[in-house]
Amino acid sequence: MNGNSIGKALVLTCFGETHGQLIGAVIDGCPAGLPLSREDIQTELNKRRPGQTAVSTPRKEEDQVEILSGVFNGFTTGAPICLIVRNLDIKSENYEQIKEKPRPGHADYVTHVKYGGFSDYRGGGRFSGRVTVSYVMAGAIAKKLLKQINIEVLAHTIQIGNVRITKTISYEKIRENVYNNPVGCAVPELAALMEKEILKVMEEGDSVGGVVEAIALGVPAGLGEPIFDSVDSDIAKMMFNIPAVKGVEFGAGFRASSLKGSENNDEYIIENGKIVSLTNNAGGILGGITTGMPIVLRVGFKPTSSIAKKQRTVNLSKMEETEIQLVGRHDPCIVPRAVPVVESCLALVLADHAIRAGMLPRILRSRK
Amino acid sequence: MNGNSIGKALVLTCFGETHGQLIGAVIDGCPAGLPLSREDIQTELNKRRPGQTAVSTPRKEEDQVEILSGVFNGFTTGAPICLIVRNLDIKSENYEQIKEKPRPGHADYVTHVKYGGFSDYRGGGRFSGRVTVSYVMAGAIAKKLLKQINIEVLAHTIQIGNVRITKTISYEKIRENVYNNPVGCAVPELAALMEKEILKVMEEGDSVGGVVEAIALGVPAGLGEPIFDSVDSDIAKMMFNIPAVKGVEFGAGFRASSLKGSENNDEYIIENGKIVSLTNNAGGILGGITTGMPIVLRVGFKPTSSIAKKQRTVNLSKMEETEIQLVGRHDPCIVPRAVPVVESCLALVLADHAIRAGMLPRILRSRK
Amino acid sequence: MNGNSIGKALVLTCFGETHGQLIGAVIDGCPAGLPLSREDIQTELNKRRPGQTAVSTPRKEEDQVEILSGVFNGFTTGAPICLIVRNLDIKSENYEQIKEKPRPGHADYVTHVKYGGFSDYRGGGRFSGRVTVSYVMAGAIAKKLLKQINIEVLAHTIQIGNVRITKTISYEKIRENVYNNPVGCAVPELAALMEKEILKVMEEGDSVGGVVEAIALGVPAGLGEPIFDSVDSDIAKMMFNIPAVKGVEFGAGFRASSLKGSENNDEYIIENGKIVSLTNNAGGILGGITTGMPIVLRVGFKPTSSIAKKQRTVNLSKMEETEIQLVGRHDPCIVPRAVPVVESCLALVLADHAIRAGMLPRILRSRK
Amino acid sequence: MNGNSIGKALVLTCFGETHGQLIGAVIDGCPAGLPLSREDIQTELNKRRPGQTAVSTPRKEEDQVEILSGVFNGFTTGAPICLIVRNLDIKSENYEQIKEKPRPGHADYVTHVKYGGFSDYRGGGRFSGRVTVSYVMAGAIAKKLLKQINIEVLAHTIQIGNVRITKTISYEKIRENVYNNPVGCAVPELAALMEKEILKVMEEGDSVGGVVEAIALGVPAGLGEPIFDSVDSDIAKMMFNIPAVKGVEFGAGFRASSLKGSENNDEYIIENGKIVSLTNNAGGILGGITTGMPIVLRVGFKPTSSIAKKQRTVNLSKMEETEIQLVGRHDPCIVPRAVPVVESCLALVLADHAIRAGMLPRILRSRK
Repeated sequence: MNGNSIGKALVLTCFGETHGQLIGAVIDGCPAGLPLSREDIQTELNKRRPGQTAVSTPRKEEDQVEILSGVFNGFTTGAPICLIVRNLDIKSENYEQIKEKPRPGHADYVTHVKYGGFSDYRGGGRFSGRVTVSYVMAGAIAKKLLKQINIEVLAHTIQIGNVRITKTISYEKIRENVYNNPVGCAVPELAALMEKEILKVMEEGDSVGGVVEAIALGVPAGLGEPIFDSVDSDIAKMMFNIPAVKGVEFGAGFRASSLKGSENNDEYIIENGKIVSLTNNAGGILGGITTGMPIVLRVGFKPTSSIAKKQRTVNLSKMEETEIQLVGRHDPCIVPRAVPVVESCLALVLADHAIRAGMLPRILRSRK
Repeated sequence: MNGNSIGKALVLTCFGETHGQLIGAVIDGCPAGLPLSREDIQTELNKRRPGQTAVSTPRKEEDQVEILSGVFNGFTTGAPICLIVRNLDIKSENYEQIKEKPRPGHADYVTHVKYGGFSDYRGGGRFSGRVTVSYVMAGAIAKKLLKQINIEVLAHTIQIGNVRITKTISYEKIRENVYNNPVGCAVPELAALMEKEILKVMEEGDSVGGVVEAIALGVPAGLGEPIFDSVDSDIAKMMFNIPAVKGVEFGAGFRASSLKGSENNDEYIIENGKIVSLTNNAGGILGGITTGMPIVLRVGFKPTSSIAKKQRTVNLSKMEETEIQLVGRHDPCIVPRAVPVVESCLALVLADHAIRAGMLPRILRSRK
Repeated sequence: MNGNSIGKALVLTCFGETHGQLIGAVIDGCPAGLPLSREDIQTELNKRRPGQTAVSTPRKEEDQVEILSGVFNGFTTGAPICLIVRNLDIKSENYEQIKEKPRPGHADYVTHVKYGGFSDYRGGGRFSGRVTVSYVMAGAIAKKLLKQINIEVLAHTIQIGNVRITKTISYEKIRENVYNNPVGCAVPELAALMEKEILKVMEEGDSVGGVVEAIALGVPAGLGEPIFDSVDSDIAKMMFNIPAVKGVEFGAGFRASSLKGSENNDEYIIENGKIVSLTNNAGGILGGITTGMPIVLRVGFKPTSSIAKKQRTVNLSKMEETEIQLVGRHDPCIVPRAVPVVESCLALVLADHAIRAGMLPRILRSRK
Repeated sequence: MNGNSIGKALVLTCFGETHGQLIGAVIDGCPAGLPLSREDIQTELNKRRPGQTAVSTPRKEEDQVEILSGVFNGFTTGAPICLIVRNLDIKSENYEQIKEKPRPGHADYVTHVKYGGFSDYRGGGRFSGRVTVSYVMAGAIAKKLLKQINIEVLAHTIQIGNVRITKTISYEKIRENVYNNPVGCAVPELAALMEKEILKVMEEGDSVGGVVEAIALGVPAGLGEPIFDSVDSDIAKMMFNIPAVKGVEFGAGFRASSLKGSENNDEYIIENGKIVSLTNNAGGILGGITTGMPIVLRVGFKPTSSIAKKQRTVNLSKMEETEIQLVGRHDPCIVPRAVPVVESCLALVLADHAIRAGMLPRILRSRK
């Protein structure tokens, strides 16, 4: 009956509701001496901010972060860092009907059962995708920590509906293009097709899903604590905490299930005096420990549950069947805005493990 | 630098190495008053015991469980339960070469790095699939606990290499057939094809992967602690702790990424006075909380890393490229023996959450 | 390098610095359906508010609590509850000298070492007694939870300096008198003497210590999870997190060390059909589990470290010996204001254990 | 309903019952590369072995440790280390009466309630002082780890009944004398008096309590994770997990409660280029963090609950008052044998914190 904290060395605790006063995060375990400004976090938040493109929800939130604790004279102190974003553009009146009529695909019904009718139902309350604001705020710190040890985290949209990237994309292209188009895709031509795919379902009052690929570069061999705190299991756990995620796979993923060992095994060679593998079907992880090759994973998102079409549901207090038609402001496809969220989640897990493994020191620089 | 415990209310701690003395598990948090015998656990262990079929490793292990603590007069006491299985049929001489030459696809190289050359390399040591003996021992207890509240856990092979089940299988068929054939498939004709697929790669000195589907029946709505101890994230974490797993998906899974919301949403109706959904694309989980519909997930396994074919690798002490050819006894496909492991892992997470949610009482019966 | 969370079922996460913006607490795991208002928490906070008596610090803080999340329509929702109190009356200029010259008895030197000079030194920063605001805020919720199952928590000052209570005080007297005098003592005549003791040291520019006794009534037998989450070890751990605590003892405590078994053992009898003990030297706890008798413990506080007298210290950057004379506003004796803090800490541990033991349901009432 | 694990970086999980098959411990998180032999652990176990002196229980246990996992070729591997000691000299028939008639001072009654009558009552089962065998086994490893960073842990008896040490004892004397006499006291003359005190109560069929002081030398400043994982709160928690402990105090302890700040504060000076304090009333800990001065604490033990005298109790199944007279083999004073247990507990907490703080590397030496 708790569970709003995650991580063992770098611990993220989240709070807040989408139509409450704010979304907040406490990050505990950040080493002292990291330079940290409001802008560092704001930059990351801006990547997922709603209301910025034609294919995103019209809800306008400035999402201005406030640092409430743990930073002093521009550096982290080693004390817990509390970050908040206030909710401003709330229109809860749209949500009165869902108090009684749970929306298909949303958590309305299960939260009603679990919390005996006491949960904040407005906009999904604690179960809205808006909780990922806290992942991104915390992720901003994690990314800065990882940068200290030259680890970089990337993510990009590789599928929206039936439009899917089939070729390998260079890291350079991902860095350049992902945040230059409204769908988070690194290939401009496909980005255009994906946008069209979304606009099409929008017109139909429908929604569509997609897949985000995440990559971590520069991760040394040896991160991950077997057998239960393996790095893949921790990444997977974190990703499934993003609303709408229904699948996670690493490296060759489910495709490996139809391969032979001789096809799937990554053979070792020596390159520039370093042991590397010829292929990376493992996605950079073997036995739950990083191999030194890039970590590669894919996160599958279902289509946004909120659609304008009429749907069957039940009236919870009358216990009778009925219908629901949603108004309100929703992303027709959550995937574009999920890109920075996936990035943040990957960064959080890696920073946690880097501290656990002693790869990140407890005091980052000397104070003079 | 630890991580051999998992669970919050029902905590599993594992120890032991494949070519060490034993594999062990401590289960802490089991309610008092559960009747528990050696046979209860042995029955489950027998399902994954090696050396039983033509498509499994010739390593012969009796895998006889011993209950060392926590059970008194046939009932659990509420104290931690320690279970062990001794390793008997060990041929470590086959593994001397891997001390220096890491096997592609295995954890040899990463453990060498992580533990500075001190890890037990024999047969993969702590990183062998044999550690799943402890999951199955603990899972046996979890299943008995779940039975108290009428939750049943099933698993079956749905794919081996390129042979894949395409139709829906009844729960009845799964219960009847899974442990009646050497591949864990509920459809006899497909089981035969899967066996052939494995025999074919065996002849080639190769291996093959596959997919296991797991199902939990009777789970009430309301299990799962958001946002980070959601039931799907905890199940995924547990599954990725099974060696060779590269993907996990729930319900419609990655397929949902190409669906529209109107296709993917599960509409609610009332059936026999209970709220159910017309479809179950959610796989029984929304917002990380169970919906009352069956939990359905798929776990993708890569092909066994040990193959008889010659592979490129490096010599760690000489830091030069070389080749390796494995002898030793391996499963050409890990999937059939993974079926009871997946079952156990699902049972463990659900029992943990059932206790957390107060659905399983702390004393199971009254002592007279 | 973290550690700002405590509790397993009811988890308290704290943040904030004494001269920063605020002191905050996130309470995760509170059952849904608890009526909770700002006043519920404010009432408790007012008990420890500074600046109210002649023997307390002149720092004037209104300590007005704000509920930022987790409460909806007057009831807890099951989501994490974030509470904050803003710091208003800050005079940090008094603290510039301690940046270089650590105050004896305070954490200045050790935090300087631990955080490499990056910690917020103003007023002790994260290590000020002001962090106990978060314990009291969380304790207010814990007390309300315990009330649901008829558990009451009391605390009172039993010693200040050399003035010590020697007789047993009735619970009634404690309830009536503790918050009616400036020292938190239940015996009016002794309260007067204690106040005099404090005024005397104040005049000398000195400070004095004392002892608080805490009692929990109505605790049923069976709380506590052995062997490491025993209820006494968890209470002790929590109490040592109150700044200035140097000793904790239960029941007969250290006095039991000079007793014989025949003197110390509490014999069982039956009273009104219930098993009780004739004496309570155990302080309500045996084997780490509650006995059903009142929990009784004593918490020893050292004298306030801040004194006006000149003291020897060192200059950290010059690494030379020097002296320090403190200005600033301090309690000459922390004990009176520690009474509600000790109460809160006891309540928090008991509420945590009550939820773990299944004595507090996850949904407290039915919503209609 | 669990709680048999403790520690965050170095995690100890315990299992086993005093009249069951064995007492066991799993130590997870031990760095790789520590030389570890059976003798290392046996040496520590021998210090607490029963049946060795006139003032200890006549129960004869060889207490031979077996290392079941985690050690390979004489070094720790980084994998969990399982250690067990088998119970050999069991006479459970002495304990049949306590099934119905709880012994005053023991956990019989509370475990009966907590576990609904299913707990192993023989000899106290899981609640016997014999569980401390696992603390000592784990402590042996902790001590070896601490030795790597030049931390030494000492403990000695300072009080038995009314015989109490009043002078300061040199560390040298403690090292030399503690294990040379049957009561664990460093002052030979007092040791003789203490032994007499115990023999006197033995004759009376009674028992007596006492106090153990523990000291840690060489601990650098900066260990401890505020605010809830402070090093004093973690030490206190661990100590209260030793059966019969009723009080814990650090440095000046409860005596500080009657001191003035000017008397209690430890002023800083520079000695040999290092910052030290003139006194050590803090017991080496300020704000929950180590100061670099010796850690000093005292642990108060109640008299052994098992006495030969007739005592009042109740019959649990008949719910009527009755009497009990204990036969069986008991220590008339637990304190002498608690000395190595207190040592081990202190070592465990410090080793855990040393790993957390990054003071102990994850790989202790390089493998060549």
